[in-house]
Amino acid sequence: MDPDRRDLLVVGAGLIGTSIGLAATAAGWSVQLSDTDPDRARYAASLGAGTAVELSPDKGADAPTLVIVAVPPASIAAACNEALSSYPNAVVSHVGSIQSQPAAEVEAAGQDTTRFVGSHPVAGREMSGPAAADGGLFVDRPWVICPVAATSADAETTARALAEACGARPVRMSPAAHDQLFASLSHAPQLAASALAASVAGLDPTAAGLAGTGLRDTTRLADSDPAMWAQIAVANAAAVAQAVRAVAQPMLDLAAVLETGGAEAAADAVNALMKRGRAGRALLPGKHGRAAVPLASVHCVVPDSPGALARLLTEIAAVGVNVEDLRVEHAPGQPVGSAELAVAPADRATLMRTLRERGWTVTEGPGESL
Amino acid sequence: MDPDRRDLLVVGAGLIGTSIGLAATAAGWSVQLSDTDPDRARYAASLGAGTAVELSPDKGADAPTLVIVAVPPASIAAACNEALSSYPNAVVSHVGSIQSQPAAEVEAAGQDTTRFVGSHPVAGREMSGPAAADGGLFVDRPWVICPVAATSADAETTARALAEACGARPVRMSPAAHDQLFASLSHAPQLAASALAASVAGLDPTAAGLAGTGLRDTTRLADSDPAMWAQIAVANAAAVAQAVRAVAQPMLDLAAVLETGGAEAAADAVNALMKRGRAGRALLPGKHGRAAVPLASVHCVVPDSPGALARLLTEIAAVGVNVEDLRVEHAPGQPVGSAELAVAPADRATLMRTLRERGWTVTEGPGESL
Repeated sequence: MDPDRRDLLVVGAGLIGTSIGLAATAAGWSVQLSDTDPDRARYAASLGAGTAVELSPDKGADAPTLVIVAVPPASIAAACNEALSSYPNAVVSHVGSIQSQPAAEVEAAGQDTTRFVGSHPVAGREMSGPAAADGGLFVDRPWVICPVAATSADAETTARALAEACGARPVRMSPAAHDQLFASLSHAPQLAASALAASVAGLDPTAAGLAGTGLRDTTRLADSDPAMWAQIAVANAAAVAQAVRAVAQPMLDLAAVLETGGAEAAADAVNALMKRGRAGRALLPGKHGRAAVPLASVHCVVPDSPGALARLLTEIAAVGVNVEDLRVEHAPGQPVGSAELAVAPADRATLMRTLRERGWTVTEGPGESL
Repeated sequence: MDPDRRDLLVVGAGLIGTSIGLAATAAGWSVQLSDTDPDRARYAASLGAGTAVELSPDKGADAPTLVIVAVPPASIAAACNEALSSYPNAVVSHVGSIQSQPAAEVEAAGQDTTRFVGSHPVAGREMSGPAAADGGLFVDRPWVICPVAATSADAETTARALAEACGARPVRMSPAAHDQLFASLSHAPQLAASALAASVAGLDPTAAGLAGTGLRDTTRLADSDPAMWAQIAVANAAAVAQAVRAVAQPMLDLAAVLETGGAEAAADAVNALMKRGRAGRALLPGKHGRAAVPLASVHCVVPDSPGALARLLTEIAAVGVNVEDLRVEHAPGQPVGSAELAVAPADRATLMRTLRERGWTVTEGPGESL
């Protein structure tokens, strides 16, 4: 393969495939997109994710150097086998959330696995389909590269090059280690979020409407696609079962202590679980998968009219303070909203004084936030 | 009591007490703040949350019309009893996450419970202390009012007036119904988030660093204060145990099917749990506790420099598009960040075209978001 050629074929124009198409196109790669639904590939192409193609028996003219299979989990192995056969000079990879099962199926099919390497960009959203695609989805995110026994160094390099072109950070891991780890980091959390959301499904809607933002945030993942997650859970069943049990069993143990252990034992049990939870939280990355950076926050009342937020930020910029993160909430139809501005801790006092001098209503936010 | 008098005493200058002080002061109430730690009350006062006072035996001069007890759950009943005795003309309320236990203890103490009413502003954050306070914390949030059997209409009206002064929406409920409901909406979600975070506490830090944003968001609540939550769980033990079991038992059942049920049964079980999860999610309020409003989103690349975001928003305002919600993520030290702009669906096409004409790099976000 010519290392300077960057011809990518994306098979499957869903959220991840289209996002890769957008990112790789932006990085200067030549991208073709195909989908079992040609309209979907054309839609993705219209977003700027590449050129829509239909897979035809004669592939000579536009043979890619790299094929990325971005199809539902249960279809990955078959699509990889087909690509390995159809493009005998191409590296073939996929972007599934599970690695061992497709790797085993490709190996069992007797394919040339020197050209095969699994991968998993650790990014996504609760939405699916090309309309939810985002060329910046992978920026500074981990992108796990999972070579099989026979994968060539060249194939691995090609897969890494795509990850880097998408702005991601490649990380190397075996398929088995990947599946074990992501059962805990991703598959069990998905099912826990769904179980939590399911537990309120029987409530009276008015009563459920009293829920705070905590429950809403904790169950955000529960909006994900059941069919896709069923395929992931089945493909990684043993590890997922173990990881789900590692969440649920301590909850049942706690419930038993709450019911029969007495106040002191119950308080100790809640404390112990929550302290261990805080220890787990401390291991998780902050924004962009990096270590958490302490930021100070300032809350500011913002009129709900075009230009008010721009005026606020113009005045902040005039004092040279950089806003690292910004969250605005407007109640539709209400005259004011609230902006939470995250800035370097050293900038907070200056920012609050300046904004107050200019007539903004500001309140100090928490001492540090992530 | 003179209904025109708005003299509030807040006992406990933590997150909620200070936030109430900020909001009530802004609404024109006269607010006194006390705390077992006088420095903390003074700090809260310096934020604009009222006047710091020390509780003294002679309370005649500054006797409040309303006392709000905002102390840790286990101390609520004692503080309410003390306030009922010290201020024989005041309405006494509290803002605890649990209602039945303090109500029972106040009733058992033989107090004049015509002047007692529980309340629970449904708002909070993972942080605690006055520095995390926010006068806008209660805006458009539910604020549950829990009268006991003897509570007078006048006491209830006074408690509602404070909720409304803080911008919240009062909702009436019995203490028992409150505790049952919030075991599901709040207490079990807290413990589920902690159990999930605890399940990754044993991972190698580098491996845990590969977690996606899903796990981070799902475990956000796990940063909460263990001591406070131990008190809540113990005070509402039976309902919390039942609600925790309602989350955990279906997870264990699913784990069993994943391990021994075969692929088809496992897929069906995941599908069923996730569909019920989506049904539960659909009951939860959107922003500000209101029904979800569909918004379209646009992603825009923003240079990480003072003024860039302001320039973007100025240009958006110039075309008359109102940004309903805005999320910016900057990787510290990286040259660019990404802004997700939520706008009315009808405005998206105009916004994208205009921004592209002006040289911004934009990508279409999901078709609808909350």
